Amino acid sequence: MDYRVKNFFLAAGSLPVVFTGTCLDAHCRETGSDPAAVRPNIILFLVDDMGWQDTSVPFWDRKTRFNELYETPNMERLAEQGMVFTRAYASSVSSPSRCSMMTGANAARHRVTNWTLRKDTPPDKKSDVLAFPEWNYNGICQTEGINNTFYAKSFVQYLKESGYHTIHCGKAHWGAIDTPGENPSHFGFEVNISGHAAGGLASYLGEERYGHDRAGNPVSPMAVPGLEKYWDTDTFVTEALTVEAIKALDKAKAYGQPFYLYMSHYAVHIPIDRDARYFDKYKQKGMSDKEAAYASLIEGMDKSLGDIMDWLERNGEADNTIILFMGDNGGYATGKHWRDEPLYTQNSPLKCGKGSAYEGGIREPMIVYWPGVTAPGSRCGSYVMIEDYYPTILEMAGIEYKDAPQQIDGRSFVPLLRQNGDPSKGRSLYWNYPNLWGETGPGIGASCTVMDGEWKLIYFYETGRKELYNIVSDIGESEDLSSSRPDIVKKLSGKLGRFLRSAKAQRPTFKSTGLPCPWPDEI
Amino acid sequence: MDYRVKNFFLAAGSLPVVFTGTCLDAHCRETGSDPAAVRPNIILFLVDDMGWQDTSVPFWDRKTRFNELYETPNMERLAEQGMVFTRAYASSVSSPSRCSMMTGANAARHRVTNWTLRKDTPPDKKSDVLAFPEWNYNGICQTEGINNTFYAKSFVQYLKESGYHTIHCGKAHWGAIDTPGENPSHFGFEVNISGHAAGGLASYLGEERYGHDRAGNPVSPMAVPGLEKYWDTDTFVTEALTVEAIKALDKAKAYGQPFYLYMSHYAVHIPIDRDARYFDKYKQKGMSDKEAAYASLIEGMDKSLGDIMDWLERNGEADNTIILFMGDNGGYATGKHWRDEPLYTQNSPLKCGKGSAYEGGIREPMIVYWPGVTAPGSRCGSYVMIEDYYPTILEMAGIEYKDAPQQIDGRSFVPLLRQNGDPSKGRSLYWNYPNLWGETGPGIGASCTVMDGEWKLIYFYETGRKELYNIVSDIGESEDLSSSRPDIVKKLSGKLGRFLRSAKAQRPTFKSTGLPCPWPDEI
Repeated sequence: MDYRVKNFFLAAGSLPVVFTGTCLDAHCRETGSDPAAVRPNIILFLVDDMGWQDTSVPFWDRKTRFNELYETPNMERLAEQGMVFTRAYASSVSSPSRCSMMTGANAARHRVTNWTLRKDTPPDKKSDVLAFPEWNYNGICQTEGINNTFYAKSFVQYLKESGYHTIHCGKAHWGAIDTPGENPSHFGFEVNISGHAAGGLASYLGEERYGHDRAGNPVSPMAVPGLEKYWDTDTFVTEALTVEAIKALDKAKAYGQPFYLYMSHYAVHIPIDRDARYFDKYKQKGMSDKEAAYASLIEGMDKSLGDIMDWLERNGEADNTIILFMGDNGGYATGKHWRDEPLYTQNSPLKCGKGSAYEGGIREPMIVYWPGVTAPGSRCGSYVMIEDYYPTILEMAGIEYKDAPQQIDGRSFVPLLRQNGDPSKGRSLYWNYPNLWGETGPGIGASCTVMDGEWKLIYFYETGRKELYNIVSDIGESEDLSSSRPDIVKKLSGKLGRFLRSAKAQRPTFKSTGLPCPWPDEI
Repeated sequence: MDYRVKNFFLAAGSLPVVFTGTCLDAHCRETGSDPAAVRPNIILFLVDDMGWQDTSVPFWDRKTRFNELYETPNMERLAEQGMVFTRAYASSVSSPSRCSMMTGANAARHRVTNWTLRKDTPPDKKSDVLAFPEWNYNGICQTEGINNTFYAKSFVQYLKESGYHTIHCGKAHWGAIDTPGENPSHFGFEVNISGHAAGGLASYLGEERYGHDRAGNPVSPMAVPGLEKYWDTDTFVTEALTVEAIKALDKAKAYGQPFYLYMSHYAVHIPIDRDARYFDKYKQKGMSDKEAAYASLIEGMDKSLGDIMDWLERNGEADNTIILFMGDNGGYATGKHWRDEPLYTQNSPLKCGKGSAYEGGIREPMIVYWPGVTAPGSRCGSYVMIEDYYPTILEMAGIEYKDAPQQIDGRSFVPLLRQNGDPSKGRSLYWNYPNLWGETGPGIGASCTVMDGEWKLIYFYETGRKELYNIVSDIGESEDLSSSRPDIVKKLSGKLGRFLRSAKAQRPTFKSTGLPCPWPDEI
């Protein structure tokens, strides 16, 4: 089925092609001594808007032009030690993904289905045809009773309560401005470096005070807070956040507590500023200014990963620290202002990018290194979903979470890491996006989706159109098989409809009739 | 007995002398509707090193020269609305007081008996005669198992868990550098403005970056963190903290949660910098540079109180916000470098000041305003102790605290506020200071003390000397009655000795013999 764990040895600069084992081969680690018993440190390294191919680590079964172009030596280093997940999924925009990660609930359930920013102000693009539901545009919240929020207890709160020192660094984006959820401390973080309501940043540049004017006032809600000491220096925000995160790690080490670091980079979100440390190198490769700037953002992010791994090694914590590397949604592929490659090709071989129901919008680079558990250089082809982080991390830390007020849709992928089981077997993945993002492109629009093994069905609320793809044989979603396989369309429509109704999912309404769009199994 | 609640109407600039009632007079408010039921906001306004007379509000039964000199119109405003406590006590230095406040435990029990700063480094002044015990020089901690810390759950943690938005602003001083307790977030604070391990500050001046050099590095552990945006401006630290606190209040209001603000000023700790907004005024009164600077610190602090009260009124929160005003220990009275008044007279009529077992070291200005509960302009002569804040604040918020790991010595003073009972009746207060502070002066040295009604017994560990005072008739502790009242000395020595042993208090050891100093009832 979808459970394919392979060994994968990356030699520096060479193409990784050594696929030698099956799921329970000699590299499987069913160890008697459980590293979780010693309370591992946990680092969740999340990159914003990173495309599946924005790295020198191949996540496909072959090396692409992008893998040759971008240089991410520290992702390679992590991949050599840990497990590469080749079918890791998230929502197609930031808030739904991040809210799923923090609550363990699927976006259909938590209803933070589009991006959030201002209180009581849904940012949906207007549609002539559809009216959008009263979704949770104020985000998630650990405080009960705040309108248009999903009330939930975060896994970070559990970590904190069980004695972890919990550090937030970078982008938060869990709740709208002036709601409790805008503040990472309201989810159990004891340290908050620069996290707030905004899902983007005004500027990467210290010279631009990360979006503050000469008087120190933010130029927009996207101004990055809390980095005043780097104002008017040439410190790129990625570097400033990394330096601050490492200071926080020094403290965690001094405290003698296990730590959880959420290293959540603003990179590589627009505006695609140039990271001067890497820009010239990519120009010398013949790239355009825009593309070289994008590549410099990626390598700056990778340097941050390396700095943190170096800190772990220098401080004797490498053998007791789990690192999870993930992206929150697909790479940005819809605006000529920022990118020079042809639109919608930035995540090739995947179709389209951020905001789209196609693989370019939802398939993420993911690597997990658990010392003593993950087989070095291994690869896993089972699919996992963004809400799986919640039960996974709590299982890694040995924490029960029975009193969470929300229902957890995620499933722990620890068995995949241990190579002793497959939680994805027989499981379908679900997406619901009854909104309009703002930009346009293939697969962008109100839709819901189900993934079932090699099959993927997308249903567009506005048109009623259904598309069916075999993701394993057609990763680029070039051939819609809905006409030739009505049996599978019917089966998946039923699955999807049943899940959405059971999760109390929302759907748009037709403005012309005032009637809700049909569920996928009603049409 | 000690229970004297009086009505006290302060006319601007006039001496308050209208004592018209008894404890349960017409102004008592035994209301049927309990304001606590609506979850009041709570502000604890703590001033550092503030003397009992450093204000225009008289805490004695007559107005003193200092009351005429210092101008604190907002303390007057608070006193007009609330209850003035004329016998409020704390420890004689910062850490013991603050740790008692946060844990509800007496200093004899929590063993943070001297001030803290560096991990595993007791700052006790060396003595030729005494060796000091292994006290908790790493402070208090909500994490179990950190050496030389007192493990406890703070009342702030309870507030947070019950839905309060919790804001720390200013001085923390609960745990040594590099221990979990240095970080206010480890005690339940969701916002931390400038709190860390240090109990003092390098500079009040924005021009001096509050103790950071041109490269942005702290010049000492006392550099105030987190106020980078005010560097190189003329913003006095008291003002910067107030502006930041008010921003945090704006957020709390937006969140729709009740809030707890711990407004913990670095003022009026040394260095006695000039607050330029007020300095000239006091010079024009004929004060010396040093004394005018001190007065400017006080009025700057008072302005902060007023700004916060203004915010409450402007935002419709005044009627639902309890304000508790308190000092952490006596006024600084032992260094000619900072003060021009004759040494040890700064808290007159009280003897000596910070660090001393005499009233000047431990008697604090205290005012509590609880809308709908406290009788306007009332005064209370019952004694209360710094550890009483813990049970009091939790009672105000309607929160049970049965699972706290520590024993709570404090008693709620809510009955005093409501004028329906006297928790101080028949109660003794205790101090234990088996350390050496650093500066010298009357009453400064290793000692333990008991207060029982009008009587106060001080026992000095090094000499075995006992001093007995009638605090009500001899507030200046000028007449030691230990020779004439051996009966009371014996009774109080027994009480003190029994309490100290029951609390597992510590005592110094004689270097010459290696034997512990006797308990007060063993000599």
